[in-house]
Amino acid sequence: MQARSESIRKQGKRIAFVPTMGFLHEGHCSLLKKGRVLGDDLVLSIFVNPTQFGPGEDYDAYPRDMEKDLQLAEREVVDAVFTPSREELYGSNFQTGIELEKLPNHLCGLSRPSHFQGVALVVTKLFHIVKPHVAIFGEKDYQQLAIIRQMVRDLDFDIQIEGGAIVREKDGLAMSSRNAYLSAEQRKTALCLFQALQKARKAVAQGETDTAKIINDMAFFIQSHPDTEIDYISICDPQTLDSVDRIQKSVLLALAVKVGKTRLIDNMILSP
Amino acid sequence: MQARSESIRKQGKRIAFVPTMGFLHEGHCSLLKKGRVLGDDLVLSIFVNPTQFGPGEDYDAYPRDMEKDLQLAEREVVDAVFTPSREELYGSNFQTGIELEKLPNHLCGLSRPSHFQGVALVVTKLFHIVKPHVAIFGEKDYQQLAIIRQMVRDLDFDIQIEGGAIVREKDGLAMSSRNAYLSAEQRKTALCLFQALQKARKAVAQGETDTAKIINDMAFFIQSHPDTEIDYISICDPQTLDSVDRIQKSVLLALAVKVGKTRLIDNMILSP
Repeated sequence: MQARSESIRKQGKRIAFVPTMGFLHEGHCSLLKKGRVLGDDLVLSIFVNPTQFGPGEDYDAYPRDMEKDLQLAEREVVDAVFTPSREELYGSNFQTGIELEKLPNHLCGLSRPSHFQGVALVVTKLFHIVKPHVAIFGEKDYQQLAIIRQMVRDLDFDIQIEGGAIVREKDGLAMSSRNAYLSAEQRKTALCLFQALQKARKAVAQGETDTAKIINDMAFFIQSHPDTEIDYISICDPQTLDSVDRIQKSVLLALAVKVGKTRLIDNMILSP
Repeated sequence: MQARSESIRKQGKRIAFVPTMGFLHEGHCSLLKKGRVLGDDLVLSIFVNPTQFGPGEDYDAYPRDMEKDLQLAEREVVDAVFTPSREELYGSNFQTGIELEKLPNHLCGLSRPSHFQGVALVVTKLFHIVKPHVAIFGEKDYQQLAIIRQMVRDLDFDIQIEGGAIVREKDGLAMSSRNAYLSAEQRKTALCLFQALQKARKAVAQGETDTAKIINDMAFFIQSHPDTEIDYISICDPQTLDSVDRIQKSVLLALAVKVGKTRLIDNMILSP
């Protein structure tokens, strides 16, 4: 893969890269479409990265469907699909880690303590292997995107990072590989994340600036649905992810909710 | 610098890189000579990296002489000298770190707890900026070289790492920018590091395999010199740096000794 990338770069072509854990959906495809426009050569990686799953999380159960993924890759005119094995990326005596001091201590990082270390590590490795000029990450994983931008700046990666807007089902549920876990009943319930975001957006449009009030109302609404457990609802600074009391400029509204055993996330930028 | 490196790489040229903290001596020059042979384009960096100095260490006092360094760079036919400022490399809100689990818990890492994190961090940054095909590091800093090799393997850097043999003064003292700190009297005393290594080599050549015995004899010899304080003397596995009781295959003999306030290191590979 490194040799291929070197050869592409020497031809003066621009490599666009979309790293994924596979089980592709239209959200991933929108990133690939963006990559197709941004680069002359489009690389997709598919790797369910063990180091970003905590103990008791769903690494083994994470959905996989390589055949369908490769069909979608072909449909999106991907030039190369990189599918390393776990052993290739993490051999014996592996001992290097990457850590950020501040950004992981918010949102998903609080309930998934080593998750973003695993993300930073695998993204660094994939960047060194795929050697992209530009890499595209979905904005559904907002904190992940913020952490990657910070890491790229701090470590002087010569790579442009682009975000791709959240893609939603017709009814508004944010697309996620983990939606595959939901029963028909849970699928209906899962819509409450997006509905709660919309309620908040409406309240802010009507002049509400008190974030405690907004979060309380969202929590009440979500808890009125069966089989839900709120991990967090946060209104925070879009750069630092520090909590905000009053909405005076654009803020990030992000939430994580378990529907049954499935942990779902969603977010939205709110402007006063 | 990144733009320059990209352009050189696109020309199909091979970039050789020697990262240093400046105050160059013949040890550095031997690395540059090696780089001159290994690459078409030779890059030297000069940066006294604050993140690899601990509290109370000699960051401020570390010797600097940019004018002489640039003369030596010219003599060694260096193509580019990279001299970033502290602010350029570590801007505000910097928060990313790199850590290795095992290799730093030996030798110099024990008395300089965050030293190798700082080394791994700055080397990663410099690799991303200079984009070398090959990088050359001195074997005097044996543990540093081992850690960089491990990090390059773990993070999939597409960079060949080469070691350069220790260069010694005529009497045997390993060349080091820190030798500049020594008084005339201390300069004489400092030779005891190399002499202790030679004594050990001789003992092993005569069949000694008991590392405790060898280390004891070295310590006794060093302590017989005024103004010395042993940090460590270690006989260990050259790959893992784990201590060895009996010399049955090639081992690393490494030591750190303070002469006055100046901490000096040296090492040698011993074969039974």
